[in-house]
Amino acid sequence: METYLQDWRTTPAYRRLLELASRPCDLTAPGLLTPERLQRYRASGAGFDLLYAFARLDDQTLAALQELADQRRAVEQFDMMRRGVVMNRIVGYECENRAVLHTACRDIFSATPKHPQATELAKQQLARLHEFTQDLASGALLNEAGEPFTDLVCIGIGGSDLGPRALALALQPFALPGRRVHFIANVDPDDAAAVLRKVEPARTLACVVSKSGTTLETRTNEELVRRFFLQAGCDPRRRILAVTGKGSPMDDPERYLRSFFMFDFIGGRYSATSMVGGVPLAFLLGYDAFVEILRGAHEMDEVAARPQITDNLPLLLALIGIWNRNFLGMETVAVLPYSQALHRFPAHLQQCDMESNGKSIDRLGQTVSFQTGPIVWGEPGTNGQHAFYQLLHQGTTVVPAEFIAFRQSQYGEDTEVDGTTSQEKLLANILAQALALATGRPHDNPNKRFAGNRPSCILIADRLTPRAMGALLALYEAKIAFQGFVWNINSFDQEGVQLGKALANRLLDIFAQQRRQEAEAPPTADDLPRHLLDAAGLLNRSRSR
Amino acid sequence: METYLQDWRTTPAYRRLLELASRPCDLTAPGLLTPERLQRYRASGAGFDLLYAFARLDDQTLAALQELADQRRAVEQFDMMRRGVVMNRIVGYECENRAVLHTACRDIFSATPKHPQATELAKQQLARLHEFTQDLASGALLNEAGEPFTDLVCIGIGGSDLGPRALALALQPFALPGRRVHFIANVDPDDAAAVLRKVEPARTLACVVSKSGTTLETRTNEELVRRFFLQAGCDPRRRILAVTGKGSPMDDPERYLRSFFMFDFIGGRYSATSMVGGVPLAFLLGYDAFVEILRGAHEMDEVAARPQITDNLPLLLALIGIWNRNFLGMETVAVLPYSQALHRFPAHLQQCDMESNGKSIDRLGQTVSFQTGPIVWGEPGTNGQHAFYQLLHQGTTVVPAEFIAFRQSQYGEDTEVDGTTSQEKLLANILAQALALATGRPHDNPNKRFAGNRPSCILIADRLTPRAMGALLALYEAKIAFQGFVWNINSFDQEGVQLGKALANRLLDIFAQQRRQEAEAPPTADDLPRHLLDAAGLLNRSRSR
Repeated sequence: METYLQDWRTTPAYRRLLELASRPCDLTAPGLLTPERLQRYRASGAGFDLLYAFARLDDQTLAALQELADQRRAVEQFDMMRRGVVMNRIVGYECENRAVLHTACRDIFSATPKHPQATELAKQQLARLHEFTQDLASGALLNEAGEPFTDLVCIGIGGSDLGPRALALALQPFALPGRRVHFIANVDPDDAAAVLRKVEPARTLACVVSKSGTTLETRTNEELVRRFFLQAGCDPRRRILAVTGKGSPMDDPERYLRSFFMFDFIGGRYSATSMVGGVPLAFLLGYDAFVEILRGAHEMDEVAARPQITDNLPLLLALIGIWNRNFLGMETVAVLPYSQALHRFPAHLQQCDMESNGKSIDRLGQTVSFQTGPIVWGEPGTNGQHAFYQLLHQGTTVVPAEFIAFRQSQYGEDTEVDGTTSQEKLLANILAQALALATGRPHDNPNKRFAGNRPSCILIADRLTPRAMGALLALYEAKIAFQGFVWNINSFDQEGVQLGKALANRLLDIFAQQRRQEAEAPPTADDLPRHLLDAAGLLNRSRSR
Repeated sequence: METYLQDWRTTPAYRRLLELASRPCDLTAPGLLTPERLQRYRASGAGFDLLYAFARLDDQTLAALQELADQRRAVEQFDMMRRGVVMNRIVGYECENRAVLHTACRDIFSATPKHPQATELAKQQLARLHEFTQDLASGALLNEAGEPFTDLVCIGIGGSDLGPRALALALQPFALPGRRVHFIANVDPDDAAAVLRKVEPARTLACVVSKSGTTLETRTNEELVRRFFLQAGCDPRRRILAVTGKGSPMDDPERYLRSFFMFDFIGGRYSATSMVGGVPLAFLLGYDAFVEILRGAHEMDEVAARPQITDNLPLLLALIGIWNRNFLGMETVAVLPYSQALHRFPAHLQQCDMESNGKSIDRLGQTVSFQTGPIVWGEPGTNGQHAFYQLLHQGTTVVPAEFIAFRQSQYGEDTEVDGTTSQEKLLANILAQALALATGRPHDNPNKRFAGNRPSCILIADRLTPRAMGALLALYEAKIAFQGFVWNINSFDQEGVQLGKALANRLLDIFAQQRRQEAEAPPTADDLPRHLLDAAGLLNRSRSR
């Protein structure tokens, strides 16, 4: 058996970390948080600095985390992943058994990509995307009245929605004049209804994203959008783009204006740099800006290849997360961007992290007896300071925080109030929060006491540009993969979503059958869900018969 | 000492629950989830049903929870709160020492309100609000060009933002024709820049919300908005409304078009049914719809007065939360609305709950040695099913879920795909998720195994109307208060936000001083934060000098 598939708790580094965890670095110790510590506990790469002086670690912990990374062959596993080794597997059991090659989508800047075939496929799709954006710009692609398209409605859910949506919102200031994108995800019919009110059908394109071409929510919403176009006298075939797997039911040139392909070796939650993100982001920002996102992501993928953890931001962030989760016992991570533009980025990370690492068996199929992926949540600061930070400072549960900041604003429109700019206020607040969480404060009034020793990290770059966005995205993708590599879990499948889906389909079959028969079917042993439902009155007030 | 101020762990009910927790109800037991259980484990009130058959409890647990509620005098404390007893206090220590009377804002439907003076004050403000909306409708309030105002930009943060924002988004389908509201909260200058791009200054009003009139973010954003109006040649005094405390620096008729008052006895996070929510919601939806919100909230406040926990939805939800948190050891709660319209409601609850109950001392100033408020997070379903539900089903951490559902959609625009409507799909999915989480599934392939015993509750009403929204809001407000009453913590102050604020102000003083002097100040012992900042390079790349 490959050593990297062994239980990580058999490594000497694990035992060393367990020892160290009995007396973790005390952030409340007077004189600990010196300028020197901040200077030294700082890693840089791909335009980002990771400041980790506010984490509960010292040089000994760092050395043990480096050993853990080495003994778990973390960087080597990341390289194997990039080279196309089948990392999405459970040894000895039926599972997806696939390579994991989202990194190939952005490995387009060198003559010698890590996985030439996957990158070649990515380049073919990029060429199609380039052609599409050129046709939009040149006027080769116009509506029936000869007008350009202004709006794109994206239909997808989960990985086909959260990443592209978060990035599109984050990069609004870089939008091409007159271009807008919208997103419909939920099977809740009010989601589509609300979005379709905002667009003029004649000037609108739609993009349906589903690798399998069978996702229930997406098919349903596609149907709503087709109907919306038809009711306005617009031809859906001249308006709807497809992003799907080759050979899926959606791979049908008769029904779609243009098609772009996704591949088996890119999971939904890792697909923002594939055509899943490419179509909406290139429509909104232009092709060149999308390539800048890819450039930033690729630069961070290269940072993730560095052997020293103090140079490798994603690996270091992953290891600090493991230190907090498995050795200091913290169940959640708060991702707190001090940038309003990133307000949906925590939701993307929540999916990417929790769907990847919310697992209970290792890559040998054995039930683990340690904690895996944490609960990831968060909202932008400074808003959160006026909301849930109370618990972060004085609650009974310790929540490690990951702050994300930029030295400059996006729009550059700022004002001085009380002698400082808004951007200065934003940055002062991050540092103040990190300090307050770390050091706490004694006080005679117990209500004004702060225990301290609540760890955080700060990620900071100059400005939230397409390139920085790509780097930040890839940083977290790599962080999540690294944690899975250390824990020896498969971060790349999602069997946990299947049972609910199967049960929902059984219920829907029953509803459909009832609707067809216009009468109650005679009860059978298999009817439990319907009985439960009827008993609960979940539907009976709304059903008209 | 009043018995309700005693340590809750001294009650017989606590000890009984501890016993019961050693063998909690096994949801995976064959035959447990019968139609009868669903029928019986269902509480109704104010238009909502609470289905709790999927919680890990049985009749014995329910009896013990009822005893806990009784021995902690939970309903009595809620009544004391409504009658104006000073519930916001820590005995023996300096603190806010205030009554807690958000319920008085909606106690306007009977001749004998619980706290006549507070309700009278609320009615006076409602009358001013009514006049304002009538003046908008009649044309008494127009811009310089004699045109009606179409947009309202709300400036506030935390409690002055999250509740009104969540409700405004939830009730979009009920908006008056041509009316829009927008929200600016973050001190990030990009927040204001992005919002102000969307509105036409001449047709826009602004509403600044701050009880103290000194909130840094709000003052800064007010300044940006004033400048925006002036640059467009629009008079800010004819455009900016104030919602503030009487006597605050913002209580200044010279600077504002109209002023509405907030009172000391309503905390920010409980202020959505005061003028804080009133101004934006009545502008958007009309005065009558705002009164409908109040009606729903009041109806739920009355439900919260019921002595039997199986009739009292907020109390029962609170007790189930305590069962999960303190007896079954769960650190978080996921709030999962199966309604896209509620997509910001979890963020409001996150603030309301975590700022209220993220506390470490009891109402006698003693450090608690039990867990208080959990981490509250969530996103709408079915979206979440394609994202973080993997962890809910197969992760190593158990997350109790609170599903929120409606039998009918808001817009009533639906389509049948595969024989069922979208709304049916939505409801089938909730039930399927609750079932799958509860029962789990054995399987030969460990990757397809589900452990089960992951508890949930379902809240369901007919349709998300203003009245239902008010009831849902009040349900959670009361739930949070009940948990505080049982734990004997003060849910109504927020000292935990002070330290970060004080440190940020120190840093900003230093920045302002540097800016004034255009030179480095000579270092003093008090300069640590600046040194930290300089050492970290947090600002130095963006500062131009």
